[in-house]
Amino acid sequence: MHAIGIDIGGTKIAGAVVTELGEIVEEQRRPSPAEDPDAMVDVVVEMIADLASRHEVSGAGVAAAGFIDAAQSTVYYAPNIAWRNEPLRQRIEERLPGLDITVDNDANAAGWAEFRFGAGRIYSDMTMLTIGTGVGGAVVVGDRLLRGGFGTGGEIGHLRVVPGGLPCGCGARGCIEQYGSGRALLRMANEIADAGGIGRPLADARAQAEASGGKLDGGLVGGLIAAHDPGALAALRELGGWLGQACASLGAVLDPQIFVFGGGVAVAGDLLLDPVREAYLAHLPARGYHPEPQFLVAELVNDAGVVGAADLARLHADAR
Amino acid sequence: MHAIGIDIGGTKIAGAVVTELGEIVEEQRRPSPAEDPDAMVDVVVEMIADLASRHEVSGAGVAAAGFIDAAQSTVYYAPNIAWRNEPLRQRIEERLPGLDITVDNDANAAGWAEFRFGAGRIYSDMTMLTIGTGVGGAVVVGDRLLRGGFGTGGEIGHLRVVPGGLPCGCGARGCIEQYGSGRALLRMANEIADAGGIGRPLADARAQAEASGGKLDGGLVGGLIAAHDPGALAALRELGGWLGQACASLGAVLDPQIFVFGGGVAVAGDLLLDPVREAYLAHLPARGYHPEPQFLVAELVNDAGVVGAADLARLHADAR
Amino acid sequence: MHAIGIDIGGTKIAGAVVTELGEIVEEQRRPSPAEDPDAMVDVVVEMIADLASRHEVSGAGVAAAGFIDAAQSTVYYAPNIAWRNEPLRQRIEERLPGLDITVDNDANAAGWAEFRFGAGRIYSDMTMLTIGTGVGGAVVVGDRLLRGGFGTGGEIGHLRVVPGGLPCGCGARGCIEQYGSGRALLRMANEIADAGGIGRPLADARAQAEASGGKLDGGLVGGLIAAHDPGALAALRELGGWLGQACASLGAVLDPQIFVFGGGVAVAGDLLLDPVREAYLAHLPARGYHPEPQFLVAELVNDAGVVGAADLARLHADAR
Amino acid sequence: MHAIGIDIGGTKIAGAVVTELGEIVEEQRRPSPAEDPDAMVDVVVEMIADLASRHEVSGAGVAAAGFIDAAQSTVYYAPNIAWRNEPLRQRIEERLPGLDITVDNDANAAGWAEFRFGAGRIYSDMTMLTIGTGVGGAVVVGDRLLRGGFGTGGEIGHLRVVPGGLPCGCGARGCIEQYGSGRALLRMANEIADAGGIGRPLADARAQAEASGGKLDGGLVGGLIAAHDPGALAALRELGGWLGQACASLGAVLDPQIFVFGGGVAVAGDLLLDPVREAYLAHLPARGYHPEPQFLVAELVNDAGVVGAADLARLHADAR
Repeated sequence: MHAIGIDIGGTKIAGAVVTELGEIVEEQRRPSPAEDPDAMVDVVVEMIADLASRHEVSGAGVAAAGFIDAAQSTVYYAPNIAWRNEPLRQRIEERLPGLDITVDNDANAAGWAEFRFGAGRIYSDMTMLTIGTGVGGAVVVGDRLLRGGFGTGGEIGHLRVVPGGLPCGCGARGCIEQYGSGRALLRMANEIADAGGIGRPLADARAQAEASGGKLDGGLVGGLIAAHDPGALAALRELGGWLGQACASLGAVLDPQIFVFGGGVAVAGDLLLDPVREAYLAHLPARGYHPEPQFLVAELVNDAGVVGAADLARLHADAR
Repeated sequence: MHAIGIDIGGTKIAGAVVTELGEIVEEQRRPSPAEDPDAMVDVVVEMIADLASRHEVSGAGVAAAGFIDAAQSTVYYAPNIAWRNEPLRQRIEERLPGLDITVDNDANAAGWAEFRFGAGRIYSDMTMLTIGTGVGGAVVVGDRLLRGGFGTGGEIGHLRVVPGGLPCGCGARGCIEQYGSGRALLRMANEIADAGGIGRPLADARAQAEASGGKLDGGLVGGLIAAHDPGALAALRELGGWLGQACASLGAVLDPQIFVFGGGVAVAGDLLLDPVREAYLAHLPARGYHPEPQFLVAELVNDAGVVGAADLARLHADAR
Repeated sequence: MHAIGIDIGGTKIAGAVVTELGEIVEEQRRPSPAEDPDAMVDVVVEMIADLASRHEVSGAGVAAAGFIDAAQSTVYYAPNIAWRNEPLRQRIEERLPGLDITVDNDANAAGWAEFRFGAGRIYSDMTMLTIGTGVGGAVVVGDRLLRGGFGTGGEIGHLRVVPGGLPCGCGARGCIEQYGSGRALLRMANEIADAGGIGRPLADARAQAEASGGKLDGGLVGGLIAAHDPGALAALRELGGWLGQACASLGAVLDPQIFVFGGGVAVAGDLLLDPVREAYLAHLPARGYHPEPQFLVAELVNDAGVVGAADLARLHADAR
Repeated sequence: MHAIGIDIGGTKIAGAVVTELGEIVEEQRRPSPAEDPDAMVDVVVEMIADLASRHEVSGAGVAAAGFIDAAQSTVYYAPNIAWRNEPLRQRIEERLPGLDITVDNDANAAGWAEFRFGAGRIYSDMTMLTIGTGVGGAVVVGDRLLRGGFGTGGEIGHLRVVPGGLPCGCGARGCIEQYGSGRALLRMANEIADAGGIGRPLADARAQAEASGGKLDGGLVGGLIAAHDPGALAALRELGGWLGQACASLGAVLDPQIFVFGGGVAVAGDLLLDPVREAYLAHLPARGYHPEPQFLVAELVNDAGVVGAADLARLHADAR
């Protein structure tokens, strides 16, 4: 049976009806009333009701950024919405009697979609890193999503790679998020722009952006990467080196058959994956004594959230 | 039904018949012919045959140090025995027709016993660190042992805590095994002994040991810890600090409800756990936004290997 | 006999007829068509032809920023002009038959002028560092210019002083150019301005510059250095300290009798050289077991490029 | 015409008559009276006189460890013999009237032999690193030996690679000699032996050596390298990584066409050169914009000192 997936983002809410094969039957998007937690619930309820009125579905899965409890019910904390210990599942179910609702972390939902229908589909154990503004993560162990004992597992961005390193938004220091995210890439690109030489095209792009009130952003750096600019590639190689080191550590614990890289930075493809692989091998414990994983970029991009949320809802309904 | 558990150690092989409640019905130990891989198989086969002749069992589980494949069959590599891609399960099954044999990593077997019958028994997600000469690990995720995509997961000792840090026996650098193991405790104790002041009792113990051809070893340091010697406690606190930092990183990924500490060093109890907890909290990402795990010492000690191996064999037989 | 020297800069091209004693007989300057590589060759050819029409010369030397091959013929790469493996010598000689043309790196030409007619004239072994926006270098060994096996030697700015240090425009990290250049001096001055205390005059100068759309630049910092402002001197001492450490490393390999400092920052004279000497001595291998070099500022300033290029051309013609 | 080469070592003095093609016609060795500087001169004079009595020679070159002045005459300082500002050339010439004597640093003599008759013979610019107990160096620039302005150039072992790094026997800190020498290899091997795992064969070899009053030495580590022991190879790779980083820095200044590695550690061949090349490329300034050098091991081994000393003496005599 079909299921509904909802993906609550900072600027928009996406909703879709998804088949058991991960195909989208109908999709809609609405602006996200991020500043008003109650209005947010209203919009989610309306989208589900509207989609459910035209399709027979087994349930609906809602994906949002933040910590969700292990029972897929309560939002402990959301970074962009004023939800604290919010019983989101109960609030939605009360208004949509008869429909099975689940709540999941958005990176977990996207990772699950990738595992079921994307780059991870032929494997049983996958670790996914989503390289956006931050570093998101999702871990699949033995064909099941690792949610953690309290529902907050898979937060790969907060693996520490440097003791006493750069301060992180999570309150700790040295997290891979500060060395392997899109934000880190911009910091590295700015440093190279300051250095002259191969940094000149980056500095020129930055100066042009600043002339019109902007700054060096992901689009500009991505454009220079696509043009194989040496300075932008140097920044990307540095980023990849850190990510590869993190994978070597993660691999010792999780032993995935595949590492999948998603998010905006992953469109660089092998330009990112090559330095990741090199650093992984250079820092791999017990290299040569056990099989080594693949490194691939994500296949599903924009729709991963809704597809994964729907599939997790279907699994939940099937298990009842 | 009962099951047989075999634990192959560096100096002895233990074998036991274990009930479904983790109780040992009969146990025996023999010297370990570690230098002769074929003789090792002979002893294991003899022990299983002998135990199976007196008890009805569902199967036998064999635990050994090393990398075991995900199918619980082949030893990729064993550190103490000359097994390389050894089809251990097949070799034993050929000589014991009708008996279901499984092979597992010894730290995983011990961790599983602790999860099922020891400190982890009321939880679904547990991370165990075994602090012996090295640092072993076992991870339980959603009531299932994390084996990894290639069978080599849960190698927590090789999580990196210091980039470019101390060389590790695995060929990489900066692994927690070099900062959180019994070997690390001895290094720290020797450094404190060299420093004078509170290190004098350690230095005196070392001098006495060396006078009779020995050196500062785990027994001596453990004795000083038990006597609350300030120098030995300082070394233990340093060790615990590193372990707590590793737990903060591991927790972001695995989110266990409980961390269990086993191995010889864990007999120090709260003298070890207190600095572990403090360092964990001091380095915890997103502290205050999600529930926090327990820290406990292991309850099963000497028998964990055979009990866990037997239980994993029973699970395997049941799943057939 | 006289020789012609041409110095191709980013904004202008200088050309001069130079005597065997390094004296300029006639000089001219033209704007540099840096964006048009062919027009650049046209201007150089016209200047040489014009100068050669009024003076008897043994040949003409052309100096440009970039990597020049060991045969003084081909520009592998120029940072400011779109020359890649450009056969510059051949292109000029084709249009000026009968005239012997050589091509040299501009820092090498300036260093050679300093060696022959400036601060290095009584020595056989000189190492020169040109402290401009970047750090240029020239090395004289046994009365001969060190060109290197591929023509790209003497790039002292890319000696590494900090492993994993600041990214450099060359794509590597930790080069002395990032710690000892005019650009580095501005970074240090900005850091001191941010720190309050002795940084206030720097902060004030910066605020005034920004009020009119500018920023803290070399002229402002140089003015404060000339006025012995404590904050600006602190930045200069930090710079000199790094340069002195680099000299200690270079001295072990090159063993010059004299280190010469040129470029805009070197006008600070002993305010720069004093911390250089102190750091050199503090980091000198085998101090006290061998003679120590002199540290001087360059004597030729604006004309060093044309004088050196002309002299290198004369040497080349004499050797034929 | 033939020339005589003398190589003063810590335990023996070698002397040989060498042809213009670097072939040895006659050779002899005597014990080195290292503790008696005057007896040392006596032995050298006797060897030269004896060899000169049977062969027509153009002169004799004497190679010794230490700082020799640029005039190839005076020993400023010798590490193993009590010579301080010793006019060695004059003292020998007084007792052997009519014979042209030169004095050279032993690493320079060996490097010159390698340049003239060994791995460097088809190049004009060579940098040689001799990896023995320490790190020796010799630099050839434009077909000439770089002696330096005071005769103490080419001391590559004291290039600094880590600011504030390990203390060096020269009184400075962080010299490549502490990270790339045979002594450093033993330190790294001991660290790996302490780490367990792949360090066990190293630890076993060390324990056996200590049982008979010895310790882990170059022969034991070299044997394990030859047997491709993972722990010994890890130590060698670490060593090679540091040497490659030093070569990247040296290359920016000296731009050799070839780096030659001599000394006992270099017998490891590509096992050493592979990590050297990898680290060189990873840290190379302006990679891709200029040609890259070769990396080879030395061809002359035991005789390099006498052959080089003789050839340098012949060149000196020819230049008179």
